[in-house]
Parts: sequence; structure tokens; C-alpha cells
Amino acid sequence: MADATARDLGEFGLIARVLERLGTSPAVLLGPGDDAAVVAVPDGRVVATTDVLVEGVHFRRDWSSAYDVGRKAAAANLADVAAMGGRGTALLVGLAAPADLPVDWAVGLADGLRDEAALVGAVVVGGDTVRSEVLVVSVTALGDLQGRAPVTRAGARPGDVVVLAGELGRSAAGLALLREGTMSGPLVDAHRRPTPPYDLGPVLADAGATAMCDVSDGLLADLGHIAVASAVHVDVDPADELFLTGGEDHALVATLPADAEVPAGCRVIGRVLDGPAQVTVAGRPRTGGWDHYA
Amino acid sequence: MADATARDLGEFGLIARVLERLGTSPAVLLGPGDDAAVVAVPDGRVVATTDVLVEGVHFRRDWSSAYDVGRKAAAANLADVAAMGGRGTALLVGLAAPADLPVDWAVGLADGLRDEAALVGAVVVGGDTVRSEVLVVSVTALGDLQGRAPVTRAGARPGDVVVLAGELGRSAAGLALLREGTMSGPLVDAHRRPTPPYDLGPVLADAGATAMCDVSDGLLADLGHIAVASAVHVDVDPADELFLTGGEDHALVATLPADAEVPAGCRVIGRVLDGPAQVTVAGRPRTGGWDHYA
Repeated sequence: MADATARDLGEFGLIARVLERLGTSPAVLLGPGDDAAVVAVPDGRVVATTDVLVEGVHFRRDWSSAYDVGRKAAAANLADVAAMGGRGTALLVGLAAPADLPVDWAVGLADGLRDEAALVGAVVVGGDTVRSEVLVVSVTALGDLQGRAPVTRAGARPGDVVVLAGELGRSAAGLALLREGTMSGPLVDAHRRPTPPYDLGPVLADAGATAMCDVSDGLLADLGHIAVASAVHVDVDPADELFLTGGEDHALVATLPADAEVPAGCRVIGRVLDGPAQVTVAGRPRTGGWDHYA
Repeated sequence: MADATARDLGEFGLIARVLERLGTSPAVLLGPGDDAAVVAVPDGRVVATTDVLVEGVHFRRDWSSAYDVGRKAAAANLADVAAMGGRGTALLVGLAAPADLPVDWAVGLADGLRDEAALVGAVVVGGDTVRSEVLVVSVTALGDLQGRAPVTRAGARPGDVVVLAGELGRSAAGLALLREGTMSGPLVDAHRRPTPPYDLGPVLADAGATAMCDVSDGLLADLGHIAVASAVHVDVDPADELFLTGGEDHALVATLPADAEVPAGCRVIGRVLDGPAQVTVAGRPRTGGWDHYA
């Protein structure tokens, strides 16, 4: 049945089909299929984060394939783990879906989750499948700090430099193209499947990052989180190609002591100043970013 | 603004209001408010499970308060951790909600999650809040095995006895009463706020449980999971007060070696036999239970 739906297979048939698509890793002591999974945490501390994607808000089925949604849902969470200086090890996935959801969509989602997770050596270890009128994908990522101290948003100090890992604005540009009817191209792909610089999270932590944040709401908004948490003034250099408000690229922004070596793949985009918590661009106040209820 | 909505406060205002309600614990090395949480895992293995609750499917706002939904969402996950022989330590919560959701509903949800988690010493460590036309609550629980081997569904052996911890059928009876218009009473309360026997999960593991399962789909269905995973025949004793198909009580069912001492608070309800994977009641085949797409 190439066009089978969730209703045709039933909950447990659907789960069985999805489980066939998933892999495993040495960290998985007990994978999907029991009441809960068991994952090795040799470090003795687990990093954990969750994100929810809703059809019509975070993705459209006519703009993104199920595979794309899986890649993006995994990326959003694994980037959060990287932003702490950790590496993702496991994903748990909640799928709330209408009874007429094509089984192929759930299978594509599982493939996308699996392939994005594989980029960091993580695997899907558990999940839940329930009926819902609206398609919702919730993902929780677990990660390992590998002995590092977690890099929070609260440690930036005056004198630090601000560094960016990864690209900004490509996802927002791709979304704008999709809205205009352009269905393919590198920017559209960047919207469908962001490519967070996972490796640079631990690298920046090892380089001495004092604060770090995933750029999901837009650079100004996410630097604002660091400014407030660290009680510092963050000034961004004016640059011809720096997107300030577009989110969803899942770049990483960090602060480094001025005498730290800036890792390959990162560039300095500003500095941390003394003064009231705010973000400025070349000294001028700027705001903007995504609020789900604004 | 007693009747403020999510739209009135905005995403970050709503999150701030919810965070005020939450507590912490020594296991929380980094709580909500950063890219991810960090939780201590002294055992070196973390138990992880996720459940999704959808308005109109798992709860109704006219039948359950936000506080009840929070209690139930936490209970469903923490019971899964107990069913592995573990103890819950942390919850992550995804809330997908319409812009007109009353802020008081989100606050009540947080209070319910907090109070149910407190029963086992767990706390909410992170979450995500997004806009959605349908109200969806996804919860992930993390837990600690405290040095125990996880008790899976796959270890039941012929000769074991089947033991039940907790009560069955009260949630289903409460749901039936709600459908008839009865809005209060102990059975209705049992539907709104199940009371899993959290402590008995680790106790049964220590008593030598060979298999264990949370009863969420109904006793026959969940024993069926053990029968299939363990490749054994499970025979349940006929009993005047044993509900076979009603789910959501989050009792625990386990198999114990015949010579093990049955812990206080548990009762023998059947035995494990050699033979093809099936569940019978007094030797007669029986089926039933909850399938989300059936």
C-alpha cells in the first residue's frame, strides 16, 4: 500500500514502520520499544533540550518534504546542544498527526531525523505517536558535555569579542523565496534543511567561550539573550552581509576572551562592552526577532 | 490582567510567567532559560521517555483543569520511568497553544507539572512554547536508575508470577462518568489525576522483577507487550475487580520469579507460562486496549 495512512496501519503498525528506519549507537543501552530508553552518559551530566514544530507555523507540507521536516526538527535541537558546548547523543520524538497522515510521511520524517542525528553520531531512542487534527512534531535532544563545563548565556565579560560560527540569513532568504513561489535553489534548501556548525560548539567551548547561544530567533534577539543574561552591552560591527533579524539558520554566536584564538570557521562580528544590557550595531540601538505571540 | 492571554504577554512574557512557578533540585546543574538544561546523572545512564497530550484526544479543558493536565502529563511520563525501575529526575515540556490561551492556563499547567514531579523529587528543567491552533502538551521525562539494571518488557520467564502495583479501571470509570455529566467524585478525580505507584517501580526492580510495564493502554494490551517481547504466554487469574481494557491509570505490572517475595502494595494477578506469545484470562484468549488510529 504505497498510499497507506496512519489509520490503515494503526498506531502500533505505524510505530513498527518507523522503527525499521532507525539506527543505533554504542551510547544506546536500550532503544525504542519499551516504556523508556536508556542512554549512556559517561560524563555524569546530560544536556537536554526540546523544540516543538507545528504545521502551518514552522513548516508547510507543500514547501518541505517529511524528510526536510525531520532534518530541521533534529537540527534545531542538536544545535541547542552544540550551543552548550556538547554533542548530541539521542533524540526522542513525539508525533501528533491526523489519522489520514500518509505512512510515507512518517517514514520520511524518521529518515530525516535519523540522517541529521547521524551527523553528530546521535540516534532516535524513543517517541510517542498520537492522533491530532494538527500535525505537530516535538523533539527532545540529549547530549554529552564530554567533560566540558557547559557554556551558558551568562558568562560574557566586557572586553570579550563576539564570534559567529555558521551562516546567517540564508533560511530567511529561502523562506522569502518560497513565499514568492520559488521552490528550489540553495537558499530554499537552506530554509528546508539548516546546517548548524555542530562541531564548532565544542570547539568554541574548548577555545574558552564565556557565553554561547544558538541563533534561532535572529542575531539581535539571540545576542540580546546573552546581553541580558550576562548583564553586558554587546556591540555588533556593521557589515555588508550580516543578517540581523532572520532566524532558523541555527548558527552559533559566542563570546571569547580578547586574547583567545578565534577557531577556524568562526569570525569576529563584535565586542562586549561594559554598560547596561543592550545590543547595538556600531553603537546604535537595534531590536528585532521572532516572538511566537507577537 | 487576570484574563491575559498568550498574545497579551508574548512568547517571552509567557515563558517568564511559567518559569516563576517552577522549583529546582540538586540534580539540576543548569535549569530553564538557556539553550539547554544540564542534569546530573550520577549513575552514568539516563532513562528517557516522551508522551504527547492533545486537547480533545487526551484531555478536555471543560473536564480537566490546566493543573490536572499538568499532573497527568507528568504522571504518564514519570510512570514510564518507574516501569524501568528508575526514578524521575527532570521534565522537559513543549507547549503548543493558540494565541488566545489564557496565561492562567499555562500557569496552572506549570503548577501541575511541578507538583506531580515533586512526588518523586523531579523538576521541570526546560521547555518550548510555540503557537498552534490545537493545544498540545508534550512532556519528556529523564530518570535515574540508581545503579539498577533497567527492567525491560523482554525478561519474563515461564514460572514467573505476574504482579500488579496500583489500581486499574478507576481512570476509565471516571471518564465514563464525565461523559455522563458527572463532574466530581473520586473516580472522576482518578481520571483527571492518575496516581501511579512510583515508589513500587524501583521496589519491584529490587525484588527481582524480570519484566515490567506501565499500564497505559489497558492491562491486556500492556501484558501483551510483555508476552510478545518476552515470547511467553501470560495467563491472568479471573478476578471480580480486575479491569482488563481501561487505560490511563498508570499502574505497574511486572513479572517476578516464583520464589521472590511479593513487595507490600503489590498483588499476584497471574502467571507466566511456556508457549506462544499471548495473553489469556483463566486460559481463554482475550484482547483489547487502546490504539490511537483504530
